[in-house]
Amino acid sequence: MSLDATLSQIDSDLPAALDRLMALLRIPSISTDPAYADKCQQAADWLVADLKSLGIAAETRETPGHPMVVGHVEGDGPHVLFYGHYDVQPVDPLTLWDRDPFDPQIEDTAKGKVIRGRGASDDKGQLMSFVEACRAWKSVHGTMPCRITFFFEGEEESGSPSLIPFLESNKDELKADLALICDTGLFESRVPSIITQLRGLLGEEITLTGPAKDLHSGMYGGAAANPITHLCRILGNLHDANGRIQVPHFYDDVPDLSDDIKEQWDALNFDHATFLGDVGLAKPAGEQNRSALEMIWSRPTAEVNGIIGGYTGDGFKTVLPSKVSAKVSFRLVGQQDPHKLREHFRDWVRAQLPEDVKADFHGHGASPASQMQTTHPAFEAARSVLVAEWGYDAAFTGCGGSIPVAGYFKKILGMDSMLVGWGKDDDQIHSPNEKYDVESFHKGIRSWARILDAIR
Amino acid sequence: MSLDATLSQIDSDLPAALDRLMALLRIPSISTDPAYADKCQQAADWLVADLKSLGIAAETRETPGHPMVVGHVEGDGPHVLFYGHYDVQPVDPLTLWDRDPFDPQIEDTAKGKVIRGRGASDDKGQLMSFVEACRAWKSVHGTMPCRITFFFEGEEESGSPSLIPFLESNKDELKADLALICDTGLFESRVPSIITQLRGLLGEEITLTGPAKDLHSGMYGGAAANPITHLCRILGNLHDANGRIQVPHFYDDVPDLSDDIKEQWDALNFDHATFLGDVGLAKPAGEQNRSALEMIWSRPTAEVNGIIGGYTGDGFKTVLPSKVSAKVSFRLVGQQDPHKLREHFRDWVRAQLPEDVKADFHGHGASPASQMQTTHPAFEAARSVLVAEWGYDAAFTGCGGSIPVAGYFKKILGMDSMLVGWGKDDDQIHSPNEKYDVESFHKGIRSWARILDAIR
Repeated sequence: MSLDATLSQIDSDLPAALDRLMALLRIPSISTDPAYADKCQQAADWLVADLKSLGIAAETRETPGHPMVVGHVEGDGPHVLFYGHYDVQPVDPLTLWDRDPFDPQIEDTAKGKVIRGRGASDDKGQLMSFVEACRAWKSVHGTMPCRITFFFEGEEESGSPSLIPFLESNKDELKADLALICDTGLFESRVPSIITQLRGLLGEEITLTGPAKDLHSGMYGGAAANPITHLCRILGNLHDANGRIQVPHFYDDVPDLSDDIKEQWDALNFDHATFLGDVGLAKPAGEQNRSALEMIWSRPTAEVNGIIGGYTGDGFKTVLPSKVSAKVSFRLVGQQDPHKLREHFRDWVRAQLPEDVKADFHGHGASPASQMQTTHPAFEAARSVLVAEWGYDAAFTGCGGSIPVAGYFKKILGMDSMLVGWGKDDDQIHSPNEKYDVESFHKGIRSWARILDAIR
Repeated sequence: MSLDATLSQIDSDLPAALDRLMALLRIPSISTDPAYADKCQQAADWLVADLKSLGIAAETRETPGHPMVVGHVEGDGPHVLFYGHYDVQPVDPLTLWDRDPFDPQIEDTAKGKVIRGRGASDDKGQLMSFVEACRAWKSVHGTMPCRITFFFEGEEESGSPSLIPFLESNKDELKADLALICDTGLFESRVPSIITQLRGLLGEEITLTGPAKDLHSGMYGGAAANPITHLCRILGNLHDANGRIQVPHFYDDVPDLSDDIKEQWDALNFDHATFLGDVGLAKPAGEQNRSALEMIWSRPTAEVNGIIGGYTGDGFKTVLPSKVSAKVSFRLVGQQDPHKLREHFRDWVRAQLPEDVKADFHGHGASPASQMQTTHPAFEAARSVLVAEWGYDAAFTGCGGSIPVAGYFKKILGMDSMLVGWGKDDDQIHSPNEKYDVESFHKGIRSWARILDAIR
């Protein structure tokens, strides 16, 4: 049977595929809120039933948190593992939604039809794009295109606490030749994008303490060390005037971009004016000798994510505060070691403290960057077929965010990952009025059929 | 009649004077909380009745807020106005009090007898120390020592919103030769202290805005301007490495200390190690070529009183925030003009902003420093008599805080003020378990009798 038959089947089955997605979207599987634990279980059960309807041996698997869904189906050719997550972000503030986030609907908009509802884009719509491709394939061929393991997580939006132990306990069962991950988007909402590098993440919380208690700034102001002033001085030194991070050894393991990748990225003609203009900005703020794409994809960052200290209510209070704290995160690239950098950062802070100010540190996660093995034949195979679906050559791109599961697959299972997805920049994931374009879903299903056809 | 007779009368009447103070302390006259408005009225009425019992023509006077108490009594010699305030600070957190803050009691402590209760030191005990001195004088002499205007405010702890209009509407009635203000303390809890300079205060709130909304630090980190980083950089530049404030023109109108005052302060042998050690600090933090007393009494300061921006809850969120704000206050000295400095500060901040970050400013009050006219004969007269009561030569000192009423008396009524008071460093004003030593009250009454005797 030809690929065309599968694509036709996908087209004709689209209304039913949308109905199935709607059913899954109606289950409020918010993983971070314990009140929704039974809804997470319900979403996992729904997926197991759906996989079973395709003849896949599927079951939910208990964890200390929400269940994993694991399914296996035999087939010829390579063994791939497909990963997606069925849990969703919380919906507050609910008042900013134009409709009930768990009563999804197809809406006509100026930009085309969209599926509106929490999880439509992140990640239920993306997850189902793969399942529907398998369904169409099975319907046309009677078999699956290759041996596939389905692996759906229910804690991605709440830090994946069960993921590492589950991978470690089920290494043999889950290891495949390649993982396919569908949790990313199209470049500039148009160009199919295969992620080849993901930044890592290091989180640190610093608390500086000066006086033992809050003081009156009239009585003590001038004589007593103010921890806010010192934290500002230190965090104000985090970057030099050219945007370069000043922590010693920070750039030790940061590679330069290969000429090959640099050429591909230059060819994307990234419109940083629109990218920044959409959020009220004009000028790329990072290292001044780098392109904007490098800044967000291949260069490390240091950001203050939050700061609080002293009196922050209405009006004014002339307090000289005892404490201040800040949350600082670093996006990591190349071979940067988050554990070493944590120590370098702490040493750098401590070295700048005056006698009367002490620092306490609290770590918040540390994951290295991931670099995909684009020499795996699936990467070129996927790239070569996606142009037919989207009308643009697919690009090997970076991703500024951190999708830790790819790193865990590599580290624990020794398995490479290929990340490809159909989200658009305006999907409002994690925000009110999340949506997924019907085009993303429909072409996404067709894209997976093309990729499976190419790599089998 | 001799002063001795008045002092003896004070000694023998102390139990009754304490009973009267207790009655006033039992009235919960919290000015900032509208729920206590009738209690403020009750405290004002209590004072009017007490003044009337001394033959003083007293009455409450309405304001848009809590009433003023004004009383007049004729006499020979100079005309003095005595100022105190009958309102008190809120008492929360109530759980940190060892007893009901409005059920005051005399307690025996290792350091002697104390009057425990809200307002004991700030300012009901201090206010009544003057009234009791007048009572004893009247009892012994049948007249008052001089012409006295009594002026008690009920909004001092809530920003004195009615004070300026009331002074302006009643200039002729309230103007005297000298104001006596009893709302300060003994130097190092021992040495009688006449305040000759008070720092002014300028409050500013800055809000920096970078992106139009909070961004995901994975998607935008590196390319988008982070307002927290920029506010930290700017506030971190507020002082140079020697503690000098870097805002241009900041020191233009800061006078050097006169040799006379410097000698007096040096003679106080201020124990900065204990002063700072009591709050967990060791090293005077201000301008490194100044003494600790200069830092808190005669040098201007810039302090960040509070800062907040981005994610400040539990755990971690990799947000790249849209906004951050800080409250910054300046203590002013000499002829520093708060309005000019506000503009210098804003210009200095704006000059450091990158293209993509904008600043909004909100002013929070601006009062210049006050310098007392110590050439007024009352200052030397008071200084010469206090040694007999306290065993230490009285000192002309500075005060790091801002007591705006003295400035208003000067500006609106053209009247100098002499600030003297009997509080101790451990009185815990504005805090749970506020107290006033019976010694402060008793010697305070005797001190006022001596001062009145000396200046009449």
